[in-house]
Amino acid sequence: MVERISLSRRRALFGAAGLAGAGAVAATAAACSDDPPPATAVSPRGVVAFHGPRQAGIITDAQDRLAFAAFDVSAGVSREELRTLLVGWTAAAARMAAGQAVADDEAAPQSPPRDTGEAIGLTAGNLTITFGVGPSLFDNRFGLASRRPAALADIPPLPGDNLDPLRSRGDLCVQACADDPQVAFHAVRNLRRLAQGTAVLRWFQLGFGRTSTTSSDQDTPRNLMGFKDGTNNIKREDAASLDKHVWVGADGDQAWMRGGTYVVTRRIRMLLESWDRDYLRDQEQVFGRAKASGAPLGAAEEFDPVPLGAKDAGGELIIAADAHIRLAAPASNGGVTLLRRGYSYTDGVNQETGQLDAGLFFIAFQRDPRTGFIPVQRRLAASDALNEYIQHTSSAVFAVPPGVRDGRDYWASGLLA
Amino acid sequence: MVERISLSRRRALFGAAGLAGAGAVAATAAACSDDPPPATAVSPRGVVAFHGPRQAGIITDAQDRLAFAAFDVSAGVSREELRTLLVGWTAAAARMAAGQAVADDEAAPQSPPRDTGEAIGLTAGNLTITFGVGPSLFDNRFGLASRRPAALADIPPLPGDNLDPLRSRGDLCVQACADDPQVAFHAVRNLRRLAQGTAVLRWFQLGFGRTSTTSSDQDTPRNLMGFKDGTNNIKREDAASLDKHVWVGADGDQAWMRGGTYVVTRRIRMLLESWDRDYLRDQEQVFGRAKASGAPLGAAEEFDPVPLGAKDAGGELIIAADAHIRLAAPASNGGVTLLRRGYSYTDGVNQETGQLDAGLFFIAFQRDPRTGFIPVQRRLAASDALNEYIQHTSSAVFAVPPGVRDGRDYWASGLLA
Repeated sequence: MVERISLSRRRALFGAAGLAGAGAVAATAAACSDDPPPATAVSPRGVVAFHGPRQAGIITDAQDRLAFAAFDVSAGVSREELRTLLVGWTAAAARMAAGQAVADDEAAPQSPPRDTGEAIGLTAGNLTITFGVGPSLFDNRFGLASRRPAALADIPPLPGDNLDPLRSRGDLCVQACADDPQVAFHAVRNLRRLAQGTAVLRWFQLGFGRTSTTSSDQDTPRNLMGFKDGTNNIKREDAASLDKHVWVGADGDQAWMRGGTYVVTRRIRMLLESWDRDYLRDQEQVFGRAKASGAPLGAAEEFDPVPLGAKDAGGELIIAADAHIRLAAPASNGGVTLLRRGYSYTDGVNQETGQLDAGLFFIAFQRDPRTGFIPVQRRLAASDALNEYIQHTSSAVFAVPPGVRDGRDYWASGLLA
Repeated sequence: MVERISLSRRRALFGAAGLAGAGAVAATAAACSDDPPPATAVSPRGVVAFHGPRQAGIITDAQDRLAFAAFDVSAGVSREELRTLLVGWTAAAARMAAGQAVADDEAAPQSPPRDTGEAIGLTAGNLTITFGVGPSLFDNRFGLASRRPAALADIPPLPGDNLDPLRSRGDLCVQACADDPQVAFHAVRNLRRLAQGTAVLRWFQLGFGRTSTTSSDQDTPRNLMGFKDGTNNIKREDAASLDKHVWVGADGDQAWMRGGTYVVTRRIRMLLESWDRDYLRDQEQVFGRAKASGAPLGAAEEFDPVPLGAKDAGGELIIAADAHIRLAAPASNGGVTLLRRGYSYTDGVNQETGQLDAGLFFIAFQRDPRTGFIPVQRRLAASDALNEYIQHTSSAVFAVPPGVRDGRDYWASGLLA
C-alpha cells in the first residue's frame, strides 16, 4: 500500500479555528499531484488525490464506508445552470477530498455556514467522491440527446426484479467512500446543499463493511451471508484487465466518455431469516465456495482456480450447475468481468414483514453494461441458486466520466463545455 | 486509555478453520477477568470484559458504531422459556464480546451454521452488548408485575412528540456498540436468530459517529448539526457522579436492580435542510455554544464553565433564555445529570418529503427516569430553541440490570431466577 500524505486534522472553516487557508489547500493539492499513480491508493487516515485522468473511487482500494446518492435535476433548470452546479460541486468535492471544509468562510455570523460542520476535526478519511450521469439526463431538457453514449442503455427489466422506483435511477449520482461514515455522509450532504434549487435528492444509501477487494493487499471481506465476497475481483494492479473490462477506450462512441466507465448499482436485499435456517452444506453449494476458507468447492485455498469442470466420484459436478460462482464466472460469460465495489447495508426492520431489511448494495464498474452487467445478470436471474435468498430492490446505471484534470476542470466538462 | 488484551483475529467456527475451541475461550475470559476495572475501558482492536458487577456499554468509552434493537416476547411464551432465552443470549453475548463466534461448531454440513459468519476474520472490535427490559415485560404474562421497579415508568407523552409506535417501546432491548459496524450488526443479528420462536424484533436502529464522550481521553465529537455534543457528559472516572446520577443504589425499590441503571432512547430527527439555512450566529444562540470551538458563549474554551448568568453590555443574557445548553444544564434541572451515549443516524430519504431522515439516536442512562430524563425533556420540549429544528420520532425506556457476574450467571437473573 502506497503511503500518502496524511492530514492529522480536518481544518476548521470558522474564524475562531481557521487554521487553514487557501495556502494549505494548494500545498495539499501539490503534494497529491506529485504522487503517481493518482487516484488509486489509500493510506491510513490519509488523502486520496482528487485530480487525475481517472476519477478516484473506482479502482481506489475500497474504503470501509459508503454514502451513495442519486439526484434529479429540478424542472426548469437550464444547461448553463446545470453546468454551474457541476463546477461548484467539483470545487467542493476537491476540497473535501483534501480534508478541507467546503469553503474557507471567515466568521460570517449573519449568514449560514457554507459547510455544515460535522466533519470538523475529522481526517480526510481517504474520502473519494465519484460522479456519474444517468440516462434520463439525455432527454430533451438540456439538448444532450445526441451526446448520449450507446453504452448508457437503460437496464431492462430482468427476471425476479422487485424494484422500488423511488430508490432506482436518477439524473446524477455521487458515490462517496471513506473510512469514516461521518465523512462520507458529510460529503453527500454538502453536495446536496449546494444543489438547492438546481437538483433534488432522489435516493440515498448508506453502506458499511465493503464486500469487495480492489488490490492484492486487501483481505477479502465477508458479505452478510457470511461468505467471502470479491475474491476474483479485478485488481487495480491489473492494468490490462482494467483497460479491457472497465475503462472506455478510444473506440468509445462519445469522445467525452473516453477514460471513463459505467457504473451499475443494485440494492440486493438478502432474505437473511431464510438463509440462516439453511444447512451449511447447502449454503456452500449455493455459492460454490467453502464458507470458512472461501476456497472454491473442489479446491483447497481461497485463491485457487475455480475447478468448474471437476466432478465427484459419482460423476456429479462438484460446483453445481446453478452455483453462484459458476454462473457469475467470466468463463460462463464469454470472459466478461465486472469491477465490483459492493457494500453491506441494513435499513432496519421491514415494517410489513418484521424481517431485517439488509443485504448488499452492489456496485459494478464496466466499459459497457450492454455486454457487462446486463447479460451476466440475465443469466444469474434465470438460474442462480442464490435467487431463493435474495431480491433486487433497486437498479440504476450511470456514465462515469473521466477524471477532473486540475482545478480549472470540472465533472463532465467534456459533456457540458 | 487502558490497553487491554487484543485478539488479532476473530476465530472461525467452522471445522476447516476451527482454530479456537473452548480452551481459547476460557483463556480469554480469564485474561479479561484479571483486568480491573472491568467493563469500562476500550482498546484499539481489543476486547472489553463482558463479566463484572456492571454491564459493559454504559460507562465504557463510546465506540464509534451502534446497533440497537428492541424485541417483543412472542405470544404464549412462558417465564421459563423467557429465562432459557436469556441464558442462551448471555452465553452468546459473552462469546461475541470475546471475539468468538456464537458457538464452536464442528463442521456440521447437514445443519444450519450456529453463527451467521459475517464477523469471521474481524476483531472483537471492543464490542459491548448491553441488555435491558421494558415496562411491558411486567404485565400479566410472566407473573412479574410485583417486581416492576417504580422507576421503570412509561415515558409520558411530551410536548412536540411525533412518535412512531412501531419504532418505540419493547419488552427487551439490546445495545451493541463496537468499532466496526459489521461486528455490531452481527451481534444483534445472532441474538435475534437465537430468539427465533421466543421473541421477535420490534425495531432496529443503526448509528454511526458517536456524539458523546465518556472519558477525559475522548475528544468531543460533533453531531449532524455540526456542533460538539457531549462536552459536559459525566465521565467514567467520576465515580461520585455515577453513583449519584446513574447507578441504582441500595435504596432501589427492587433488589434485582441494584447496581443497574435505566436507559431512555429517543430517535431525534434533525430538520437538516432548515438548519443548514440558518445563520451561524443564530445556530450558536440556539445551542449556546460557538460552533467551531465548542466554547460556551461568553467563555473562551470548550471546557470552561458555562456562564449562565453572564450578560452583554446591553444587559441581555449572553446565553439566551431558550438556549439548549441552558435548559439542559444541571443547574436548570435541580442538579439532574444524564449519562449520554448518543449516535448519529441516517435512514435515507423520507419518501413523503424528499428530505433526509437523519439525526441523533439519543441514549441516556440514569438511576431514575422520573427524576432524570422526564422532567429535563419536559422543560426542553416546552422552551428549547432547538425545537424548531428537531422532531422526536421514537421513545423507549428500559431497566438495565446489573452485570453478569460469571459464566454461570445470566442477564436479569435477579429478576427471573
